[in-house]
Amino acid sequence: MLIGILGGGQLARMTALAGLPLALRFRFLDPAPESPSRDCGELIVGRYDDAAALDRFARGLDLVTCEFENVPVAALESLAPRVPVRPGPRAFATGQDRANEKALFTSLSIPVPMFAIVRTLDELRAAAERVGTPAIMKTCRLGYDGKGQARLDHADDASLVAAWRAVREQPCVLERRIAFSREASMVCVRGLDGSTAFYPLVENVHTKGILKRSIAPSDWPEHLERSAREHAGAIARALDYVGVLAVEFFVEGEGAGARLIANEIAPRVHNSGHWTIEGAETSQFENHLRAIGGLPLGSTAPVGHSAMVNLIGGLPERAAAMSIPGAHLHHYAKEPRPGRKVGHLTVRRDTREELLHALPRVEALADSVNVLS
Amino acid sequence: MLIGILGGGQLARMTALAGLPLALRFRFLDPAPESPSRDCGELIVGRYDDAAALDRFARGLDLVTCEFENVPVAALESLAPRVPVRPGPRAFATGQDRANEKALFTSLSIPVPMFAIVRTLDELRAAAERVGTPAIMKTCRLGYDGKGQARLDHADDASLVAAWRAVREQPCVLERRIAFSREASMVCVRGLDGSTAFYPLVENVHTKGILKRSIAPSDWPEHLERSAREHAGAIARALDYVGVLAVEFFVEGEGAGARLIANEIAPRVHNSGHWTIEGAETSQFENHLRAIGGLPLGSTAPVGHSAMVNLIGGLPERAAAMSIPGAHLHHYAKEPRPGRKVGHLTVRRDTREELLHALPRVEALADSVNVLS
Repeated sequence: MLIGILGGGQLARMTALAGLPLALRFRFLDPAPESPSRDCGELIVGRYDDAAALDRFARGLDLVTCEFENVPVAALESLAPRVPVRPGPRAFATGQDRANEKALFTSLSIPVPMFAIVRTLDELRAAAERVGTPAIMKTCRLGYDGKGQARLDHADDASLVAAWRAVREQPCVLERRIAFSREASMVCVRGLDGSTAFYPLVENVHTKGILKRSIAPSDWPEHLERSAREHAGAIARALDYVGVLAVEFFVEGEGAGARLIANEIAPRVHNSGHWTIEGAETSQFENHLRAIGGLPLGSTAPVGHSAMVNLIGGLPERAAAMSIPGAHLHHYAKEPRPGRKVGHLTVRRDTREELLHALPRVEALADSVNVLS
Repeated sequence: MLIGILGGGQLARMTALAGLPLALRFRFLDPAPESPSRDCGELIVGRYDDAAALDRFARGLDLVTCEFENVPVAALESLAPRVPVRPGPRAFATGQDRANEKALFTSLSIPVPMFAIVRTLDELRAAAERVGTPAIMKTCRLGYDGKGQARLDHADDASLVAAWRAVREQPCVLERRIAFSREASMVCVRGLDGSTAFYPLVENVHTKGILKRSIAPSDWPEHLERSAREHAGAIARALDYVGVLAVEFFVEGEGAGARLIANEIAPRVHNSGHWTIEGAETSQFENHLRAIGGLPLGSTAPVGHSAMVNLIGGLPERAAAMSIPGAHLHHYAKEPRPGRKVGHLTVRRDTREELLHALPRVEALADSVNVLS
């Protein structure tokens, strides 16, 4: 089976590494000739809106999937009549636009921060009054890893104008900043037959809008786990989704009073699921392939306790990473640049206590090389 | 780092799959254009004694390793002045010739079956009297997976002549067949600095000379585990070995009286170590790369209990394999032929009891597709 992946970055690379043992083969389309996936299959270098490149890409494929949510819908629409595209265009239309995403959350009664859609500076002025400050503006389209965002701490006109310029006067969601205590994500997978499996709730820490660390399973109250599954399952059903889907949440409050507030969805394998390579019975990458291939889903059960620490903008020496007992290096074969995810380290232990004991050395190594901006 | 592997079969493929996450890159030399490794790096199609192919293969490599022990020593000798070859030619000179292997075992006081080296039919006649029957003849060179072997049940002249013909009148080891109760292997890894790590002792079952199933860790008496480590460690030291080394043993006797008798060594990653992909903290493939790359060795600790079942001569439908809870399919992308290893299934559980409960379904699936001859 030959699978085409739109995007040749580290997510495509790790998906292919999970698929090769199943004798799946891969072709990638990416504008960059040095794409990390080049070692794991055939890389077609071309733009996503280049019809000739799409033709070469599509020839002989059994399936198409995407490694990023901002793939042009026109590319998906051009491919869909020729080869199954999973997940389908509907998930992308939702994931690509924060206004659609918010509409989906509210239609499913999933709690979200107070928000308003703004298309003009005047709309921003009106919205700021309704939503209040501190708030955050996020462009409706093409935001990721903290890009396309601006904080709005005060509602005076100078602040509003500055924020409107900071998002380049693009349509935005203005969102009340909530006093969240923690961040979480639910990575789930839905098969072609509608069966759904959930990885344990993941505890995330971001820095400058970029995921820094994930721990799974969380040790948070059971009702949060249940609630995350319900929300993610409802979203997957509503989108008639096939593949791995991630939903990011804020956690508001503590203990029995804690509750989840939806932040955003990612219609793809997700950085907060990388720990599943070592830390779950079946990795998110293999399960994505099982789902889109119409195969039975694999167990999402955790194997002990895992932490994933991103390497951002810099890489340690291999020997330094490998001398940490139980640390697993994933090096994306990308040129380091400030703020760019170039690898990650996973450490797995049988108990949470052992994991928390092992984690500081891994985090210290990452901190010693990371260059965020 | 660009690593060259002589041989492009499944062992090379799985080694590359372990190395790609470390941003190691691979080139393979193999006479077969359809070699399983073709998806994981650059495949140079050529014979091992083709100087031009060896030149193309060697260009720009940082390291060379081998996926099989029968690589022509002349090829290694041609490469060694240009690029580090690990493990070195000495291990191959030993692993390629059962006479050398036996000499090594006896020099290290490692128990072996009663044996004699025979080069002529007359030597066979004399040896059969000394060694006794039932015995087995194994060609000194180029035997694997039961090939190049003949049983000798009786020492009458007709039987001797028939056995001599069956091994094509090649130099042989005549070995007394021992009444072994079980078969075992010790997979270990020795680093460039001489540090050595041992995976747990593996219980193996062969059928028609081909490995059928491995379970690790074994539940055998602790003194066998200790003894296997001592023997494998002594062999690795004696060969000044770098990389993964496997030693196969027969287990004679039961309980406290059980003892190991060395059968053969394999100077490479080994089929009885495939379970380490899911079942150990660091796989044998990654540890081989760490060792030859001069990097710190990874933990060889098991993660629960694992069984590996070979797929020989036939492959199940992907969906059939994937519907078995916790079964991990490794499909080598090879054309099935009777007696050819084309994949394996690994199942991992937290306890041995759970593993033994899960194993029959995996074995039944393998049995339903295997074609041994």
